[in-house]
Amino acid sequence: MSKRPISSSRPAHGIPADKLPRRQFEEEHGGPSWVWGVHASLAALANPARRIERVVATRNAASRLPEGIDVQILQPDAIDGMLPPGAVHQGVAVRAHPLEPLSLEAACTPLDGRTVLVLDGVTDPQNVGAAFRSAVAFGARAVILQDRKSPPLTGVLAKAAAGAIELAPHVRVANLGRALETLRSYGYLTVALEGEAELSLEDAFADKRPVALALGAEGKGLRPGVAEACEKRARIPIAPIMESLNVSAAAAIALYEARRSRT
Amino acid sequence: MSKRPISSSRPAHGIPADKLPRRQFEEEHGGPSWVWGVHASLAALANPARRIERVVATRNAASRLPEGIDVQILQPDAIDGMLPPGAVHQGVAVRAHPLEPLSLEAACTPLDGRTVLVLDGVTDPQNVGAAFRSAVAFGARAVILQDRKSPPLTGVLAKAAAGAIELAPHVRVANLGRALETLRSYGYLTVALEGEAELSLEDAFADKRPVALALGAEGKGLRPGVAEACEKRARIPIAPIMESLNVSAAAAIALYEARRSRT
Repeated sequence: MSKRPISSSRPAHGIPADKLPRRQFEEEHGGPSWVWGVHASLAALANPARRIERVVATRNAASRLPEGIDVQILQPDAIDGMLPPGAVHQGVAVRAHPLEPLSLEAACTPLDGRTVLVLDGVTDPQNVGAAFRSAVAFGARAVILQDRKSPPLTGVLAKAAAGAIELAPHVRVANLGRALETLRSYGYLTVALEGEAELSLEDAFADKRPVALALGAEGKGLRPGVAEACEKRARIPIAPIMESLNVSAAAAIALYEARRSRT
Repeated sequence: MSKRPISSSRPAHGIPADKLPRRQFEEEHGGPSWVWGVHASLAALANPARRIERVVATRNAASRLPEGIDVQILQPDAIDGMLPPGAVHQGVAVRAHPLEPLSLEAACTPLDGRTVLVLDGVTDPQNVGAAFRSAVAFGARAVILQDRKSPPLTGVLAKAAAGAIELAPHVRVANLGRALETLRSYGYLTVALEGEAELSLEDAFADKRPVALALGAEGKGLRPGVAEACEKRARIPIAPIMESLNVSAAAAIALYEARRSRT
């Protein structure tokens, strides 16, 4: 499978490819990769921004695909053989070029009340995918990721997102602290989610500006520079006997509470 | 590893082993198995109800174990070799006899305001473990599982629970619908979580009785007989563009909301 040359790259949501930072461009343009599972595949096929290279499906799963799709009918084990071991493909997989990121400004302005999710150092693809899924479920407008340390939006991550990566734009930035300061300058209430904070989420969200919510990885949490860039620090109140929540559970609750407190 | 004979079985939280249903007994008493990871292992060692058979750890991880534990120091790859492929053991694993279930009455009465979580057909060990973790984090008093179809509380499930399976008792019942009717007779507000319900969770929880919250597996949801046994049906309001939440995200939010609405 040859990588597409840089010169032929389609503009990313209106941003010419040559305006993207080089590292970001290389990461995002690593060439096509597989997305599998019914929800993830259907959402990729429905996304006009996706360049699809190939669609494979069992006869059964193919009947669920939209009309006019060029699909290759295969036995389930032939699809197994194309994907990483253990991929639960439910009879369908789509090989597509990567999703292209937006700029922070394009993704987050003008303000319209919706939440922005910022993930710091969350490297587990399952957790990032689950966070995308909850973000879209609770009407978030964008997910901000660290340029270098975030997993690509494919495979296991795409499966866990159940199509959500096609529905919320993502932004990759080199410096999350600076991105949070920029979001604050746009008018967002920037909130760092930290287990040891004194303020509860509910109290933090009493401020009715749109929320930019920053979450760190389990164990390590937010890096100090990222937490300090936020206007408020807040916690989800949990029983002291448990040290922490799973990061995707914390993201789900915080996104739910942001939505609840604004409707 | 020989199974321990029934006659030598220690009473399960005061319930003589011969009073447990036979199938439940056999499942629960399937012999010792491994629990791994720092949180899960430390919690198993701290649980006085656990019969520990063996503890293995790297020299580094062993320094985090409590004093007086008989631990075998091993190289990381020797521990790898004892566990299923891919087990992230963080240098410590504990081989222990299974946790024994309580009866519904012992686990859920007398009422004290705390929530009970009921899982119907959730078979993915990762999701069941994550649900235990959120249950304990939000002060739930017990987790009710279906006798036959629920995964054993070991391995991947124990790891995802991060020690929570040691902190909340579990109950195994043959008929979840009947268990929910019994919980209602005890004084619980029984709530079925369903995506298509009209009532929001927040409105359902305005009734201040302690909550028994029933959740089904992703895709299939609650079985009709289980949902119908509940007094109320409620949903987590999500954007129509997403079909559903991940079951452990839904559990986390519902447990958070039950706690929030009662404090």
